[in-house]
Amino acid sequence: MDAAVTPTFDLQAWSARHLATVEEALSRWVVADAPAGLGEAMRYAVLDGGKRLRPLLVLAAAEAVHGNTQAALRAGCAVELIHAYSLVHDDMPCMDNDVLRRGKPTVHVKFGEARALLAGDALQALAFELLAPDGDAVPPVVQARLCRLLARSAGHEGMAGGQAIDLASVGRALDEAQLREMHRLKTGALLQGSVMMGAACGDTDAAARDALSAYGAAVGLAFQVVDDILDVTADSATLGKTAGKDAQHDKPTYVSVLGLERSRTFARELLAQALDALARTGLPDTRALHALARMVVDRNH
Amino acid sequence: MDAAVTPTFDLQAWSARHLATVEEALSRWVVADAPAGLGEAMRYAVLDGGKRLRPLLVLAAAEAVHGNTQAALRAGCAVELIHAYSLVHDDMPCMDNDVLRRGKPTVHVKFGEARALLAGDALQALAFELLAPDGDAVPPVVQARLCRLLARSAGHEGMAGGQAIDLASVGRALDEAQLREMHRLKTGALLQGSVMMGAACGDTDAAARDALSAYGAAVGLAFQVVDDILDVTADSATLGKTAGKDAQHDKPTYVSVLGLERSRTFARELLAQALDALARTGLPDTRALHALARMVVDRNH
Repeated sequence: MDAAVTPTFDLQAWSARHLATVEEALSRWVVADAPAGLGEAMRYAVLDGGKRLRPLLVLAAAEAVHGNTQAALRAGCAVELIHAYSLVHDDMPCMDNDVLRRGKPTVHVKFGEARALLAGDALQALAFELLAPDGDAVPPVVQARLCRLLARSAGHEGMAGGQAIDLASVGRALDEAQLREMHRLKTGALLQGSVMMGAACGDTDAAARDALSAYGAAVGLAFQVVDDILDVTADSATLGKTAGKDAQHDKPTYVSVLGLERSRTFARELLAQALDALARTGLPDTRALHALARMVVDRNH
Repeated sequence: MDAAVTPTFDLQAWSARHLATVEEALSRWVVADAPAGLGEAMRYAVLDGGKRLRPLLVLAAAEAVHGNTQAALRAGCAVELIHAYSLVHDDMPCMDNDVLRRGKPTVHVKFGEARALLAGDALQALAFELLAPDGDAVPPVVQARLCRLLARSAGHEGMAGGQAIDLASVGRALDEAQLREMHRLKTGALLQGSVMMGAACGDTDAAARDALSAYGAAVGLAFQVVDDILDVTADSATLGKTAGKDAQHDKPTYVSVLGLERSRTFARELLAQALDALARTGLPDTRALHALARMVVDRNH
């Protein structure tokens, strides 16, 4: 299937081009001159790190629907700011108490807990600020759609809700359905939201939107399954964060619930679901989305 | 001036009517069934407490411009959620480490630090979710405007920025200009933002908007000056929070910089500025805004 649909697509070149734009925009929008060192902590949390998978999903979906490019760039950066703030808060001593992230000291280690807390809060606000610019480069109807999607993906019915389940599940046995629900919210919601925000930058019919939503759900869950696999199979240097920390924190994972081999099989099944959903969109060019789904499952960090 | 402009306005009746609507809406929108106890912590942080000054400012400004009432209710609740989340995070051990708020244990004391952190994060997301509802009860152009105003008021150039200055100023002498800048951001931005969000629910000309902005700035600063006064003159039972905590934390305040009497004089001057600005709006009925400004300066808690 892959050979037929994406004969010539070069994900690396596509990503490099878009990542340059995203990094430049993040560096411009996350300003250093926020008061009392806050800007410095915000930039440290966001710049020079991360795979930028979420912005790439936004931009790939926006391209597939021929969406407004200015809106897509803002949406991609906004969703990355939400991701970055969640890592800052998640690393804090009262949460995962982690000292290493992307190979560097975590934000609270570098700037203190109070400033880390505030930097996370300010990054969340900035995400929504990016989505609602002055002027008419992004139509108000698109701004409103993007704010709606991001708020739902990030909030109590999305990422924050999933983190609450994660917190409550430490040391408890979850069955597969409970684990899936936790990850659907904790990681999946924002990844699926990225796809839907990209789609919201253009005009799509309900059938294409539903198929993109299914694609996003499958990719989002696959991402977490692979994350759980890498947590036990990769080392900290490759991951750029502390390996083995889920087991160390006694957190349920796909590997602990399904075992390593069944987790790997499940990741391949989710990839197949994602590619099937893409085929159902009816969109003429979904090559970037296709390649990103493969990358999520085949990555080694 | 007051007697001439507001001969018959009954703030208590007006507030009681609007507060009932706000409390009902907050209770409906901040749902208990968010995962793993998160909803319970969010509701605890928001319901049954607080003067609701910010929603009242939103509703009063919206009435003055004959704004969309559904938009105004959502904006009022959204700004209150931002205020509530900021208190939850501000009370945490790494910030002010306060155990009493509105006469009750603070959120982290009751639910643990991790859940308090997440509840605050989820409340911020929910604020933006309220501003961007499905359907056409609130026009997209108003949704986008409200998201823009709230994000700016809450973020690094608003509340979060002011908190960063506050944090950095503990134990340091600030001059009056620095203190004013800190409070303009920390407290003033969200209060001024409340007024501007109310105004954004309707159609106003630039002159009225500028005058309302000046009103909001003056009321916002007056609120903080009076807060500083009450911190030294009222007791904890009346305040519903720990009195004297600024001095205890060695934080600069208007009282420490100007002294008590000059602080009181300054609060009256700011009230006069607010009322002057209202007169410049050219709006026919600003009685609620007028009465709220007086209430901010005359309150004893």
